[in-house]
Amino acid sequence: MPDMVAGQQSAAVFAATRPLHVGVVGATGNVGTIMLRVLAERGVPIASLRAFASSRSAGRELICGAHAAQVEDLATADPTGLDVALFSAGATRAREHAPRFAEAGCVVIDNSSAFRMDDGVPLVVPEVNPEDARAHDGIIANPNCSTIQLVAALKPLHDAYGLERVVITTFQSVSGTGLAAMDELHTQTTDMLEARDIAAAVYPHQIAGNVLPHCDTFDAEGHTKEERKLMDESRKILHAPGLRVAATCVRVPVFVSHAEAVNVELSRPASPEEVRELLAAAPGVVVEDSPADGLYPMPVTSAGRDEVCVGRIRRDPSVENGVSMFVVADNLRKGAATNAVQILEVLAEAGTWPST
Amino acid sequence: MPDMVAGQQSAAVFAATRPLHVGVVGATGNVGTIMLRVLAERGVPIASLRAFASSRSAGRELICGAHAAQVEDLATADPTGLDVALFSAGATRAREHAPRFAEAGCVVIDNSSAFRMDDGVPLVVPEVNPEDARAHDGIIANPNCSTIQLVAALKPLHDAYGLERVVITTFQSVSGTGLAAMDELHTQTTDMLEARDIAAAVYPHQIAGNVLPHCDTFDAEGHTKEERKLMDESRKILHAPGLRVAATCVRVPVFVSHAEAVNVELSRPASPEEVRELLAAAPGVVVEDSPADGLYPMPVTSAGRDEVCVGRIRRDPSVENGVSMFVVADNLRKGAATNAVQILEVLAEAGTWPST
Repeated sequence: MPDMVAGQQSAAVFAATRPLHVGVVGATGNVGTIMLRVLAERGVPIASLRAFASSRSAGRELICGAHAAQVEDLATADPTGLDVALFSAGATRAREHAPRFAEAGCVVIDNSSAFRMDDGVPLVVPEVNPEDARAHDGIIANPNCSTIQLVAALKPLHDAYGLERVVITTFQSVSGTGLAAMDELHTQTTDMLEARDIAAAVYPHQIAGNVLPHCDTFDAEGHTKEERKLMDESRKILHAPGLRVAATCVRVPVFVSHAEAVNVELSRPASPEEVRELLAAAPGVVVEDSPADGLYPMPVTSAGRDEVCVGRIRRDPSVENGVSMFVVADNLRKGAATNAVQILEVLAEAGTWPST
Repeated sequence: MPDMVAGQQSAAVFAATRPLHVGVVGATGNVGTIMLRVLAERGVPIASLRAFASSRSAGRELICGAHAAQVEDLATADPTGLDVALFSAGATRAREHAPRFAEAGCVVIDNSSAFRMDDGVPLVVPEVNPEDARAHDGIIANPNCSTIQLVAALKPLHDAYGLERVVITTFQSVSGTGLAAMDELHTQTTDMLEARDIAAAVYPHQIAGNVLPHCDTFDAEGHTKEERKLMDESRKILHAPGLRVAATCVRVPVFVSHAEAVNVELSRPASPEEVRELLAAAPGVVVEDSPADGLYPMPVTSAGRDEVCVGRIRRDPSVENGVSMFVVADNLRKGAATNAVQILEVLAEAGTWPST
């Protein structure tokens, strides 16, 4: 039923939009595959579909609802005629190809980190800062997966009570790293259960039966890029340049969905009940919070859904106006593909592709 | 080699102690088994060994170094003649049997939560508050596993810079729950890999490929008992009744060793280099902190060791005098069995069982 509802909502969004010439770049990857699925699920009206990837995948046929596309080699593809392209091909390829797609008149919604912190590029979570999407100059950035679910839960609190400081610890699934990491977790888990030697290739250490406080590369201050993204992107999306954020990002042996333990210091007091009501009414957020009945957000119940699930809402007794919560979302869907398609919907609503 | 070194240290500790009449209660469990191993490894001089468990296990033969013991039924066992008993039989059995062991003249070192917060009962981590052990009245409590590794890392910071506030998020292995939970993770993991239905019995939900923000039962404020233990026990062990602590405890699909992301606010400034040097010199603590070379603490490299491993030491930029770190230890060894045997060593050093 959730897909049905999403599709019906989308139909209204696209009422005044002509069918679009849509491209998906990095279409064979973990996120690209879900982008094709979410475009169909949400009823985006498609005039033509094109799919792009590396030359290795060129020629493969991909499906998006009633549409099919043969994968084109991104390196040599001509973007002329595209209305919009959803990029999920990594930062290097985005830097190389997104500008030429944009110059050809195609709006690029890029899932990589390439342009996120650029001044002229909007960084958008539709439930949080949809208005930013309209001020684009051809490229709009989709935030980091961990950031999207965090700010979706923080925005209502920011508006109602003000945010002072946020401390986040993540539990990130291997699908955020890509298909090879999912294969590695699968292989390592089998080897672990059968007491065979475990080989690590995608990650520097075994991830099966282990946790790695290591997502992306380290900077001189000892933070990872992933931790910096949480700090920097949250401030940009929330328009809160002074927001104090601390982050520790940890990879866990989970296939899909990221979880986050979040401690928030608010400017004004809020009871757990008030926070619960506020978040239950927030767009894109679902409150799952009856822990004594076993109800709280988890990766396995969040995977495959488009909402951000929040639970374990309670007072943090260690600080004034402190609130603790647990935030879980499907990192491939709301953390990537769904958020990108929702940005496309925001553009359609803003009249980017009028029907007349 | 670590066992060898530990054994040599222990020989000195016990130089003035006669061989002891030692009991292990809950000897067939996850922690009891390791207690027997650690007693032998650390060279505790044993005159006689007795093992206690439920009637179900009575008659089984257990080994501790050169000594063997047939398991006795705890319910009917007479503790007369024991010098010391290491209890790991749960809070209910501890409440029922520890007092009668103590009344019989046996010093009880109890691994359960039964007596930890009692005013007359010392709660001891030998690297942190060994002096407390000497003021016992027959029962000494071994702290919760998550607490032991936390305070071992916090104590040097507390002494040198003062602690203001600590925010902890845990990644707890299933061995903390017991053997049945380890079996459940194994079975569920096999079922997950083979795409079979997954049955949960020990935990309320699937733990394989998942994380559960749920360790022990919930209180009216929405915290778990495990979270309260981290708050309350840390304050008692550190003699810091005003210390502000926030905790989120999460079960992860890891067999052995708990990890903790810890954000500390100090009273006085400390650079990451100073913290690193301080912790490297602290008893029972090992600094593993060269993240760019892939060196940081992890469950798989911590399992089987007695030290508390600390890494990812960096400035927390979101607060004055903030430090972030990642703390990992073997929850069955330092988090339970090793700490209990170390308490026994403290008592021996204090002259509890003089050789003459």
